[in-house]
Amino acid sequence: MPEQQSPATCGHNCGGCSSDCSERTAPAKLTPNSVSTINHVIGVVSGKGGVGKTLVTCMLASELRKRGYSVGILDADVTGPSIPKAFGVKGPLRGTETGINPAITTQDISIISTNLLLPREDDAVAWRGPVLTGIIRQFFNEVNWGKLDYLLVDMPPGTSDAFLTVMQTLPVDGIISVSAPQGLVGMIVGKAINLAKDLDVPVVGLVENMSYFECPDCGKRHSIFGETQVEEIAKHYDIPHTATLPINPSFAAMVDAGKVYDIELNGALDTVIEAI
Amino acid sequence: MPEQQSPATCGHNCGGCSSDCSERTAPAKLTPNSVSTINHVIGVVSGKGGVGKTLVTCMLASELRKRGYSVGILDADVTGPSIPKAFGVKGPLRGTETGINPAITTQDISIISTNLLLPREDDAVAWRGPVLTGIIRQFFNEVNWGKLDYLLVDMPPGTSDAFLTVMQTLPVDGIISVSAPQGLVGMIVGKAINLAKDLDVPVVGLVENMSYFECPDCGKRHSIFGETQVEEIAKHYDIPHTATLPINPSFAAMVDAGKVYDIELNGALDTVIEAI
Repeated sequence: MPEQQSPATCGHNCGGCSSDCSERTAPAKLTPNSVSTINHVIGVVSGKGGVGKTLVTCMLASELRKRGYSVGILDADVTGPSIPKAFGVKGPLRGTETGINPAITTQDISIISTNLLLPREDDAVAWRGPVLTGIIRQFFNEVNWGKLDYLLVDMPPGTSDAFLTVMQTLPVDGIISVSAPQGLVGMIVGKAINLAKDLDVPVVGLVENMSYFECPDCGKRHSIFGETQVEEIAKHYDIPHTATLPINPSFAAMVDAGKVYDIELNGALDTVIEAI
Repeated sequence: MPEQQSPATCGHNCGGCSSDCSERTAPAKLTPNSVSTINHVIGVVSGKGGVGKTLVTCMLASELRKRGYSVGILDADVTGPSIPKAFGVKGPLRGTETGINPAITTQDISIISTNLLLPREDDAVAWRGPVLTGIIRQFFNEVNWGKLDYLLVDMPPGTSDAFLTVMQTLPVDGIISVSAPQGLVGMIVGKAINLAKDLDVPVVGLVENMSYFECPDCGKRHSIFGETQVEEIAKHYDIPHTATLPINPSFAAMVDAGKVYDIELNGALDTVIEAI
């Protein structure tokens, strides 16, 4: 959470301060609205699409909730929003005089997403960068989040407007990067990690999704997309905590059925959860 | 190819005309530079990331080249560019007074991509929408493409700046949509298809990637990401031609090794290739 400091006691850490003083050297980070306090903002990032950012975001949110924390998810993938479907929640949303009320899952996770604002789930939004930027800012500071221990931000692929807006204007404490075994994926994931570091956002964990597939008939493990590279990437980019997830057909089925909360993790993401 | 028409003979098809006359009702489409002619521009689109747009683009380009056509690829995934790695080509690029020379693969496919302009392949570009738009325009009309039968445009995920710029300003003849079995993927793919239709760009084919995995040990087929939905999506969105690709560990390995050209398709994409 950004703290407002008086110039007299100021440590000149402008990125984490919301004061608009004359000595500012970095853009102010946004603060939540008057009815909301958010203790930790965690971005789930990849650079590459389709590696499982949404799955990991939903799994982290569910696991944190199971441990008793209050959790929200800001779906920053404005043109490809998947969070509501995974939890089986639908719009429309309602507002109050302080802002928009997020959708609440049956497990009490708060969600804001473009798909809660559209009449049909396959309706497209043809919004260019400045509109995306405005939407993401509103999703943060014009939503009645209430009191949250964790707000997870599910990022779109790429390192353009949505990525830059989240990293530069939201008070992100750290990011979890999501990767997959293929070498090509590692290259694109590296781009997002490098840029996050350039923007002074710490990368606290790396989750490799789709690490292997265990044939349910013969039990043999197959490295479908290539050999795991999680330790190699973590070492190369100096990321302290890692975890892996297998390819499990039930994951996709649970997401499609809106039952992502019910996926049993068996501790698979514990190392990363303890890092945030 | 857009044709310039005199107002006297004009059919008021402004989207396909490059004349800047007073009766224009749609933005002018770009034309290639003075040393280039391009017969067909085909977009490879998904909306969703990680379903295999780049793989399908590379396979289509390779197959068209094997059939004797001259082929170029414009990598419109500016912040997550994967095409050069898949073909094993590297920068830097050189220019002439008419424009930039594309990289040429050993099989004579011309390629333009952000990653040919960067010192290291995992360097990120922190470019917002207007810069992306400018780059994509330059990739089309400031590159010495020469005489091409086909220019394939590999699109990034989402329906924001890159998507809108390609659809609105490049003379796209049609798009091939790429999907994967999961229901969630179908929803996001539907967004891009709906928006392309709204922009009057015909969707000529649908390729479902990762349809199934055949266990190399026991031979059984597994629907890892869910049951195929290619016919259902094609029917729902009225897409005339379809094809499917299996999950094949050798595909990822060939892409990582820069040998995407050598993948044997055994006719898997024929229906879609004949449609373009």
